[in-house]
Amino acid sequence: MSMLVVGSVALDTVKTPFGEAENALGGSCSYASVAARCFVEPVAMVGVVGEDFPETHVEFFAGRGIDTRGLTRTAGRTFRWGGEYGFDLNSRETLFTELNVFADFRPELPAELRAFDHVFLANIDPSLQLSVLDQIEKPKMVVLDTMNFWIDGAKDALLETIRRVDVLLLNDEETRMLTGEANLIKAGAKVLDLGPRMVIVKKGEHGSLVFTEDFLFSAPAYPVELLFDPTGAGDSFAGGFLGSLAESGDCWDEAHLRRAVIHGTVMASYTVEAFGLGRLAEADREGVEERFRAIREMSRF
Amino acid sequence: MSMLVVGSVALDTVKTPFGEAENALGGSCSYASVAARCFVEPVAMVGVVGEDFPETHVEFFAGRGIDTRGLTRTAGRTFRWGGEYGFDLNSRETLFTELNVFADFRPELPAELRAFDHVFLANIDPSLQLSVLDQIEKPKMVVLDTMNFWIDGAKDALLETIRRVDVLLLNDEETRMLTGEANLIKAGAKVLDLGPRMVIVKKGEHGSLVFTEDFLFSAPAYPVELLFDPTGAGDSFAGGFLGSLAESGDCWDEAHLRRAVIHGTVMASYTVEAFGLGRLAEADREGVEERFRAIREMSRF
Repeated sequence: MSMLVVGSVALDTVKTPFGEAENALGGSCSYASVAARCFVEPVAMVGVVGEDFPETHVEFFAGRGIDTRGLTRTAGRTFRWGGEYGFDLNSRETLFTELNVFADFRPELPAELRAFDHVFLANIDPSLQLSVLDQIEKPKMVVLDTMNFWIDGAKDALLETIRRVDVLLLNDEETRMLTGEANLIKAGAKVLDLGPRMVIVKKGEHGSLVFTEDFLFSAPAYPVELLFDPTGAGDSFAGGFLGSLAESGDCWDEAHLRRAVIHGTVMASYTVEAFGLGRLAEADREGVEERFRAIREMSRF
Repeated sequence: MSMLVVGSVALDTVKTPFGEAENALGGSCSYASVAARCFVEPVAMVGVVGEDFPETHVEFFAGRGIDTRGLTRTAGRTFRWGGEYGFDLNSRETLFTELNVFADFRPELPAELRAFDHVFLANIDPSLQLSVLDQIEKPKMVVLDTMNFWIDGAKDALLETIRRVDVLLLNDEETRMLTGEANLIKAGAKVLDLGPRMVIVKKGEHGSLVFTEDFLFSAPAYPVELLFDPTGAGDSFAGGFLGSLAESGDCWDEAHLRRAVIHGTVMASYTVEAFGLGRLAEADREGVEERFRAIREMSRF
């Protein structure tokens, strides 16, 4: 089994009530790849960075056994994002977005990555996500992330992309926005009509709701006491989720699907405990399974 | 086993995106008593109504086998509350509060109710809650509800009351407010230091978090598709929770406690499906256990 992650590699500047980080390694592709690599190998990242991107970051990925052949370096500056979180870390304000080399990102998969069979299309322009799908030879499972910006501004391309993927990730606000339905239970079910076999509605500190034709799964969040910086939580979730399924090999087994959601939850719980990738990179399989058991213990009745 | 509910009996006027109800039977004592009676008998209500309170409402309670000897009728008008809910029913604006006879409510328990051993003190002035506690002969379990108004305006009396109860109900905002701690996991644990053996943090559509010295329990919400009017959900939860424990008799068994939280969740899920008590009154034990099993099925992994 193998997994491919397509998305952004960024240098993030983040302010939270607890402190500030400048130009920290970030981006959806970075978080998802590191999280996935905890479960499966090979994991390959597809993204673009600029001339200013520290070589130590590339070495960090390679050192974790992540395939970086799809990580292109081009002339210009790396994508930068700046944001600030409010008091309870539930509200976020974007301070700046410098697309830089990411503005011209046209993912071209090296031949040797086209046979990768589990694919996470992180939040980028849906037409680019489609172009990646066209390059994959025989995907076993495709997971798609998106955001309000594309729901608003590129709905047709997004709907076409959604029709071609297996799993769609949304947060609660995006779910309501995409369907025009206020009730989250109805809205989640309605998204299934758009084509995916599974819809995961991420609710941050409130866990997630998973919709399929066959079952509804309500997953709690891990009880994080050291919530420090939520940036990257959703991508870490995605990486853990698909990594866990890629490892098990049997993507559509219900028990595996539920377990994979909890694995995603666990990976997100590491990410939010520090700025950037610092804490996520410390996660090992033993620690992951310990948190998995803690969530089970905490939700049984 | 027996259960006593002390709180408001009201005539509510509620606007939601789905419609409007005028002078519907409501109040914390009404919701909690009806929910509790699904599990245990006797259930007695202690409250006050005015001359204008329809006798049919008293007959409604009596017809459900609820002991109304503690429901006093005095000169004046019944407590009235008016509120309006926003688009997704998560935000509520109070339109008016007419305390009327409730302003002079001084709960005096008839002698025959003082031996009742499971007590729900719904949201009223904490000094009145204390006075009720002083009248109970030998409580086995006391559950307390309160609100931001008392945390703000009567904190000392509230803290004294909290010290004397077993279980405290709060919503997430109140939990943060009471402790000054933004992180809900830390805040919930901090409330335990104030004295109660258990703290239940209600999160509406996101379920609840239960804190004790021994365990943390994350309970999902029931997936309500017909969310109609959230008024009374918290009190229905409380009634179902304590009613379930009063029925089982063994209040501090962990499995019973977790089960009781889910029973509370189920009772709240009925209440929100209609205006007033209409839907809650239709709940029977068989239906309750069916929803209980649905929640278990939906949260297993």
